[in-house]
Amino acid sequence: MLEKYDLTKKTDDRTYAKEIKPLQERLGVLQRALRDKKIPTIIVLDGWNTSGITMSTYEIIQSLDPRGFTLHAIERPTEEERARPFMWRFWMRTPSKGRIALFARSWYSRALAEELHYSGWKKALKDKINSINNFERQLSDDGAVIVKFFLHISKEEQKARLLERERNPLTSWLLTQRIWDFHYHYETNLPIIDEFMEKTDTDHAPWHVIEATDRKYTILKVYSILVKSLEKRIAAEKEGELKKGKQKNLPLPPKKPVTRRSSSGSAYTKEECQNVLTSLQIEMLELNYLLFKRKIPFIIVYEGWDAAGKGGNITRVARFMNPLGYNVTPISAPNENDRQYHYLRRFIKHYPKAGHFAIYDRSWYGRVLVERVEGFCTENEWQRAYQEINEMEQDYVESSGGGIVKFWLEISKEEQLKRFQQRANDPLKVWKITEEDWRNREKWKLYEDAVDEMLARTSTQYAPWVVTESDNKWYSRVKVLKTIIRHTEQLL
Amino acid sequence: MLEKYDLTKKTDDRTYAKEIKPLQERLGVLQRALRDKKIPTIIVLDGWNTSGITMSTYEIIQSLDPRGFTLHAIERPTEEERARPFMWRFWMRTPSKGRIALFARSWYSRALAEELHYSGWKKALKDKINSINNFERQLSDDGAVIVKFFLHISKEEQKARLLERERNPLTSWLLTQRIWDFHYHYETNLPIIDEFMEKTDTDHAPWHVIEATDRKYTILKVYSILVKSLEKRIAAEKEGELKKGKQKNLPLPPKKPVTRRSSSGSAYTKEECQNVLTSLQIEMLELNYLLFKRKIPFIIVYEGWDAAGKGGNITRVARFMNPLGYNVTPISAPNENDRQYHYLRRFIKHYPKAGHFAIYDRSWYGRVLVERVEGFCTENEWQRAYQEINEMEQDYVESSGGGIVKFWLEISKEEQLKRFQQRANDPLKVWKITEEDWRNREKWKLYEDAVDEMLARTSTQYAPWVVTESDNKWYSRVKVLKTIIRHTEQLL
Repeated sequence: MLEKYDLTKKTDDRTYAKEIKPLQERLGVLQRALRDKKIPTIIVLDGWNTSGITMSTYEIIQSLDPRGFTLHAIERPTEEERARPFMWRFWMRTPSKGRIALFARSWYSRALAEELHYSGWKKALKDKINSINNFERQLSDDGAVIVKFFLHISKEEQKARLLERERNPLTSWLLTQRIWDFHYHYETNLPIIDEFMEKTDTDHAPWHVIEATDRKYTILKVYSILVKSLEKRIAAEKEGELKKGKQKNLPLPPKKPVTRRSSSGSAYTKEECQNVLTSLQIEMLELNYLLFKRKIPFIIVYEGWDAAGKGGNITRVARFMNPLGYNVTPISAPNENDRQYHYLRRFIKHYPKAGHFAIYDRSWYGRVLVERVEGFCTENEWQRAYQEINEMEQDYVESSGGGIVKFWLEISKEEQLKRFQQRANDPLKVWKITEEDWRNREKWKLYEDAVDEMLARTSTQYAPWVVTESDNKWYSRVKVLKTIIRHTEQLL
Repeated sequence: MLEKYDLTKKTDDRTYAKEIKPLQERLGVLQRALRDKKIPTIIVLDGWNTSGITMSTYEIIQSLDPRGFTLHAIERPTEEERARPFMWRFWMRTPSKGRIALFARSWYSRALAEELHYSGWKKALKDKINSINNFERQLSDDGAVIVKFFLHISKEEQKARLLERERNPLTSWLLTQRIWDFHYHYETNLPIIDEFMEKTDTDHAPWHVIEATDRKYTILKVYSILVKSLEKRIAAEKEGELKKGKQKNLPLPPKKPVTRRSSSGSAYTKEECQNVLTSLQIEMLELNYLLFKRKIPFIIVYEGWDAAGKGGNITRVARFMNPLGYNVTPISAPNENDRQYHYLRRFIKHYPKAGHFAIYDRSWYGRVLVERVEGFCTENEWQRAYQEINEMEQDYVESSGGGIVKFWLEISKEEQLKRFQQRANDPLKVWKITEEDWRNREKWKLYEDAVDEMLARTSTQYAPWVVTESDNKWYSRVKVLKTIIRHTEQLL
């Protein structure tokens, strides 16, 4: 992409003076339109060092209401960020509906900066391309507009600018050896960047290369492309093309045959199970310690019928873990704030730190279970979710070096009734049972269909579903703990 | 406090076996009661190294539903945390209503660890005591229950434990020189810790010293005090003692005479003001740079009548700043999630990083303005807020080394009417005016009283209010910018 550009382009003062003003005003108007239509906007400014990223950012925000945008200057990750997968920090910076997120440098620069000096960079960059494409497509499918700029200058121009900065005491301290190294390797890096951009140049998040030698030319071109892109998005909104339910469909992941759901495992007695549990305890603590030392994270997802025993199971399993090494995240209906973002964001937020366990009590699968059955999202949305979830889980496993295992706690309809009645009659347990539980029970068949489709479409090699027979609570706990041990062992 | 304890206390196996079980069950029941009553719970476990903090934490959580608590193992602050005032990271870890936050080590350990090795530690610790007492009292006033344990062992006991750990390859790597140093200075540190505890031992957040030589004795005592404290809190709730509006009153800060609010500053023309603004630009950018280099943060608060020109003022002022050096936080009504915490938390969350500006478009003063006038909080709550806000601002200034300046944008009632009508008649501006604006206008007098009381009670030396005459928008912008320059200069 980068070779063909004519880097001598310039804009004269008169043209600039004439054209910039209406563009600036237009951008202000568009910001309000995006806000009113609750469209999240992502603007990426990336490019060579000294190509004018800060200057262009500065020029754009002159036309924006500062209360409606956030500027993210992307630099080295913090400790918190380094302990999470690569895209995590960018997911956390996605704009809420109606807001603009401006990225001065982005996941592109960071992928290059963090990978290019390793010997395995080719594979790493390929993984990153996948992560990035999924990220951008998922946000776009959810209604976001994404505009990406690459500010392009020649090696000679860069050299001149670096030398100028070096001479100026106000800027010289900003120049690191790394920046110079990247300059010396301009020719080596160019085709890598070129390929990177080509593979991330998509319909929903296209690249715009800006010939950034002349300041005025740069500003005008950035402005006019930005204004055009935002206008296009708003026009699309008006025509209803992107209205909920009318979005293009993602391919559904194939349905794999899964083991039939079964609710009864074995007739182990409580005592037998307790003995097994005790014998597993030491194994578990040792594993815990090794995962912690090697900074390998692990995600455990619990889903299951109401009264299937998720709470008790989590409590028992957690007792076998180092208390400083895990977090339990209970998931309920999304709140006001959650709803301002892509639905996956609130789960990604609770990704475990390197070396830790994250236990989700219910999870992102709510999308294809309760939200599907109760109609809380559109059909397009929950159908799209299978693919989105598979991508998210694969990305997690690949980029964190950790693992995921998902438990479906299965009980029979009769067993559920028995437990509901027990709860209703026990003053110590009556808080556990609500009207909603009874209502959900009436939709058993609808939920069964949703569960079966979920198991068939989202049980993958990297994030398998384990149907856990839970009519016998003790058996269920033993199975969960054994499964966790087996899966974490493989990561060591 | 620490000298008088008999550190030879023990519990025999039979007593332990008999007494622990009912306490464990009781704690589980209490957790649910706290959840149902939406009481946030803070449990602090602190003490000497090797005194059994991890062990005690582990024992407590055995009785808790892991979905309802979060364990915070407090260690060195992260980069993000170091760039904020001391209490920030603890504010961010306060539990939401109905949840338990367990702190294994806390602000106490951190205050000692982060301050004790500086020569100015006495003053620093005194400041921290103030911060901590305010923090705990504010949370308690908001309904939280706080239980603090100090695990106490003798120097000899500690030495034996340290040596034991050193011999064990599984634990030896955890022992740092710092831990040994702290041990060698046991006698020097004891009176310092003693005084620290004495000055933070309050009715609402009392210290409980645990003689932690014997493991079983330790567990039983921690459990029984914890159960008793939580039961007391729940009983108080039942008796309605802590019901909203019945809480004890904080002293109101004195009303200081303030400059009369005035809406007209001068007859400067737009052109004159623009010239002044341009001349201030360079000064501002230079200051920006110096604050950034020296890591001094600064908070700017905007409050004012509807249509007083906050938005335009912020936009113009922000244009003079380094785009990477500021954040604008627009404040609207608290959402579901915000309401689960102390009302100040969502503002504290957006404190600027060291070296940055934070601009709040409306702020925590909503409590004593809109929430007071519209009855969104109780009279006790908004009256308490004056003192809470003053404490928060003073603490901010003292612990960050930064500054705060607050602008009240004043316009006359006639000017507001004129602007409302202009907005209503301009298709480009009609979005700016809502029914609510007209309704607020009808309550002008009530708001005036609230504004006057706010200015009188919360204009302090460390965080002054600046009434900004805003009938002339240009004059208002010049005044704001000049004021910011004057106040930030003083920090250099």
